[in-house]
Amino acid sequence: MKPLRILLLGFGHVARRLTAILGPERQHYPKLNPFDCLFIAVLTRHHGHVIDEGGIDLSGVLSTDPAKNPMYRAEARATQPNVADLIDSLDYDVLVDLTTLSIEEKGQPALGFVQQALQRGKHVVTANKGPAAFAGKELLALARQNNCQFLCESAVMDGAPLINMAGACLKGTRITAFSGILNATTNFVLSQMEQGVSMNEAIQAAREKGIAEADPRFDLEGWDAAAKIAVLTNLLMENSITPLEVKRDSIAALDPQVIEAARKENKTLKLVCSSLLQNDRIEACVTLQALPRQHPFAAVTGSASIIRLETDLMGPLLITQEAPTLSDTAYGVLNDLMTIAGGDQ
Amino acid sequence: MKPLRILLLGFGHVARRLTAILGPERQHYPKLNPFDCLFIAVLTRHHGHVIDEGGIDLSGVLSTDPAKNPMYRAEARATQPNVADLIDSLDYDVLVDLTTLSIEEKGQPALGFVQQALQRGKHVVTANKGPAAFAGKELLALARQNNCQFLCESAVMDGAPLINMAGACLKGTRITAFSGILNATTNFVLSQMEQGVSMNEAIQAAREKGIAEADPRFDLEGWDAAAKIAVLTNLLMENSITPLEVKRDSIAALDPQVIEAARKENKTLKLVCSSLLQNDRIEACVTLQALPRQHPFAAVTGSASIIRLETDLMGPLLITQEAPTLSDTAYGVLNDLMTIAGGDQ
Repeated sequence: MKPLRILLLGFGHVARRLTAILGPERQHYPKLNPFDCLFIAVLTRHHGHVIDEGGIDLSGVLSTDPAKNPMYRAEARATQPNVADLIDSLDYDVLVDLTTLSIEEKGQPALGFVQQALQRGKHVVTANKGPAAFAGKELLALARQNNCQFLCESAVMDGAPLINMAGACLKGTRITAFSGILNATTNFVLSQMEQGVSMNEAIQAAREKGIAEADPRFDLEGWDAAAKIAVLTNLLMENSITPLEVKRDSIAALDPQVIEAARKENKTLKLVCSSLLQNDRIEACVTLQALPRQHPFAAVTGSASIIRLETDLMGPLLITQEAPTLSDTAYGVLNDLMTIAGGDQ
Repeated sequence: MKPLRILLLGFGHVARRLTAILGPERQHYPKLNPFDCLFIAVLTRHHGHVIDEGGIDLSGVLSTDPAKNPMYRAEARATQPNVADLIDSLDYDVLVDLTTLSIEEKGQPALGFVQQALQRGKHVVTANKGPAAFAGKELLALARQNNCQFLCESAVMDGAPLINMAGACLKGTRITAFSGILNATTNFVLSQMEQGVSMNEAIQAAREKGIAEADPRFDLEGWDAAAKIAVLTNLLMENSITPLEVKRDSIAALDPQVIEAARKENKTLKLVCSSLLQNDRIEACVTLQALPRQHPFAAVTGSASIIRLETDLMGPLLITQEAPTLSDTAYGVLNDLMTIAGGDQ
């Protein structure tokens, strides 16, 4: 089988983890064997780029030695690649988009890049919530029209089987509702605050654990959660909403007394994501809820996540991710790539 | 697309639920639409049979009116069908085996029927744990050789995504261990006994809820759990064990004082199924464990089940089935049938 040719956008933590698994660490994962791929370009806007249609050495782009890392070459850093032009002109099979969501830009520029690739009949794998959160249903239709695939398992709950799982394992059912804890930063912060830690200290600890971004407002204000709700609503419930239409509770200014009050009632505060199909309308919201200790979401602390799916044909199903790491996100991307490669991989 | 021609073995609760969903109830499930099938034979050993290569009316076989139900005709009840001959001679696409496991017979006669069908290049879908528990790895190989599929999603945790999920969503990973609560009867009985109910009363209640069989020893002695461990070990961990090789704790003669002692330590008793790959050897066992209340399995009470999967590439993953019904088991079979039918179904 010919190796899958990959054009990679973005080179942050997840991209590095993915290239490490497929490059220098590969021998540790025997079941990856049948999967073969070639990175033909890695494009970033501010951290260099490299294009080599013969295949990039993955150890090279991971190297911290400027002499060995082609992304560090002076000419690579001096010029910004014209991403849109390259998506239209390079010879690749899959666009792998590992850039991050911009709510202000309504998922752009990633959304446009994804559309361009699909229009060329190229597959797209993305861990970016933006494209599916702002246009999931349209992108699935565009992929179908062009006989290619749009996959984004890692956009929600990293590589835990969720989006692809619904397609493969819930065929013939109608997903009528879901609810869950889908944002690690807020769950971690709430768990810490319950133990008496201040919000600022909790955020600092979340940053040190690599859960929270430098600017945690995107998480605390419920935007990340809202984007995930939109992704799942668009892809699993065949609806069409954007994060802007999701009702949002923010915990950015949460009073510690609210936590204390919940604790006194033997309850735990959780930022719950939910989407419910009722009379053909979607009710989607991020709500701060005080849950009793025996609620299945109550035990989901720290950076863990959980989702509960309801369908017409089968009873409720819960999926829990205990302690996700960057490997889980990278694996979700890899799973999508193996789905595209097809066969018994 | 041509309808999938089905030869059905067994006509107990799950088979009736499946035929009801695909027959009289079908209009309630809009997402089933693209799936088309035809039952060409329903064979039971003691409850009649019907063969109609033009397609059986599903409302008919569900009818309690002997005049309307072809399985009740005198000649159908007077003669036992020669199942082995019919598997070899009828014109069908999929053998659907909904008979039940016999540990004493080491999965026979179902195992032999499944092998016969696969050798003819016919797909097999089974909710019976026997074939995969006694010969899972061999059956997968036999199916591959004959260019057909052997699927049994419903054998463990009913239709909850597990066996097919691992194939579709954990591609490229090595499953190194699993543990879980997989037997509803014992979990229900232990939950009831914790609340002060006697074992006999708990078993009676489990029977009334349709969880326990008339003879509950198969569950209480850990055989059902051991069979499920063997199914998952053979199919997900590419190993080859039988239920007879699984270490088993029995709760058939459980002393209520053991439950009381656990309760005093604020622990809960659970019959835990597990399988662990270590140094290329499988350690598989059913063990009665006193778990702390914060353990993720502790909250799984009544007829619910849970499984925790460990892989080399991704962090631990938990799947919980909250309140399974017969529809869940029937759905697992349906999901397998839709996988065989293929396409966007």
